[in-house]
Amino acid sequence: MKHLFLFALLLTSTVAARAAERISSFTPGAHILFQGDSITDGNRGRNSDPNHILGHGYVFIIAARHGATFPEARLDFINRGISGNTVLDLEKRWQNDTLDLKPDVLSILIGVNDRGRKVPLDEYAQVYDKLLAETRAANPKVKLVLCEPFFLNHLATLPSVGSPDADIVKRQEIVSKLAAKYGAALVHFQKVLDDACLRAPASHWIWDGVHPTYSGHQLLADEWERAVREFQPPTK
Amino acid sequence: MKHLFLFALLLTSTVAARAAERISSFTPGAHILFQGDSITDGNRGRNSDPNHILGHGYVFIIAARHGATFPEARLDFINRGISGNTVLDLEKRWQNDTLDLKPDVLSILIGVNDRGRKVPLDEYAQVYDKLLAETRAANPKVKLVLCEPFFLNHLATLPSVGSPDADIVKRQEIVSKLAAKYGAALVHFQKVLDDACLRAPASHWIWDGVHPTYSGHQLLADEWERAVREFQPPTK
Repeated sequence: MKHLFLFALLLTSTVAARAAERISSFTPGAHILFQGDSITDGNRGRNSDPNHILGHGYVFIIAARHGATFPEARLDFINRGISGNTVLDLEKRWQNDTLDLKPDVLSILIGVNDRGRKVPLDEYAQVYDKLLAETRAANPKVKLVLCEPFFLNHLATLPSVGSPDADIVKRQEIVSKLAAKYGAALVHFQKVLDDACLRAPASHWIWDGVHPTYSGHQLLADEWERAVREFQPPTK
Repeated sequence: MKHLFLFALLLTSTVAARAAERISSFTPGAHILFQGDSITDGNRGRNSDPNHILGHGYVFIIAARHGATFPEARLDFINRGISGNTVLDLEKRWQNDTLDLKPDVLSILIGVNDRGRKVPLDEYAQVYDKLLAETRAANPKVKLVLCEPFFLNHLATLPSVGSPDADIVKRQEIVSKLAAKYGAALVHFQKVLDDACLRAPASHWIWDGVHPTYSGHQLLADEWERAVREFQPPTK
């Protein structure tokens, strides 16, 4: 009897974990906008009906899963990532491509091009902060999701995997501080990718250091959903 | 005690169902090739490393999920769908784009352009049969997956959803017979899409009658995986 009870308890927790995955993180009719660079872009649609094609990346996986699981919620997923963008590029198109779209949820992944194109850390932090301030001012209720920029040497094998890129680590710290400042959910992509290298070589997860493979995008999507689902907004 | 036992039994079956999803349908190192038209293509990669980008569709969802769940299996997903293709187009490029790639698993979705471009039913059946015969001859052990072509009026609302397109129904029958003849798994996409219209309007699942939305592609991916997982090859 005692063993059976413990068995039932164990199974209950497993089922509860699965049930949690079946609860939408979003209110019905929510507009969920993704902003970023090529990792977000994924060759998304650019034609007159751009929201039909969400690209070959984590955005598509998240949208497809939610759209099929919660059709009655009529969630609206929008991708406005553009390949090669830095935070300075986001700044130029923020009004048109973000504020004017009036998102209920805004997810941002930006930073790896800032590293490559040498946008200084203080400018990165300052402009990123300004974009978030403008977004909050336009809609105090907007839910923010900030994704850590990441870098993973695709040629690395254990144990060199996990040797962090110094510049990206600093940008991750900036994003973490901004998430705390603006009460945003924070998505730890770097840790997920680092941990995955214990299961397969880095090249299974990342194509060229910057762009995840299809397997890597699945990890990003899973972690994004987990972080958003479990996020507790700060009490005021 | 009795109730607790039944409770445990119920939970066990739920957990067992989930565990089944965690078992790969493929042998380690398998090359899994998808052939078809635009629904398969999804703007996949065309450059020198075309297997990096699998497009924004069911192929990407299937590959991403398997690649992240079974990294140690080193599965290789390949997409050679081309927008606008009929079975006659597949025939022209079958040697280069299918046989030369030596797939262990070959999935085919073709037919909706044959309907639109009026490839007669008997020619559709005959050429499709020839391609399968050539594939079996090249590799008697190849696992075949035949996907029904489908059509769903995106403007339809219940109860007109479910009024089948007469031409596509005939092509579905042809594909069903070919699956039986060649011992292939058969994927019933039409029924999945029809059933989904009980949960949301057709336009939630299909964009223009032919191309699924991101939500629709998730349904295709889920059904493809289920059909392949549960398929019992014929005993000889």
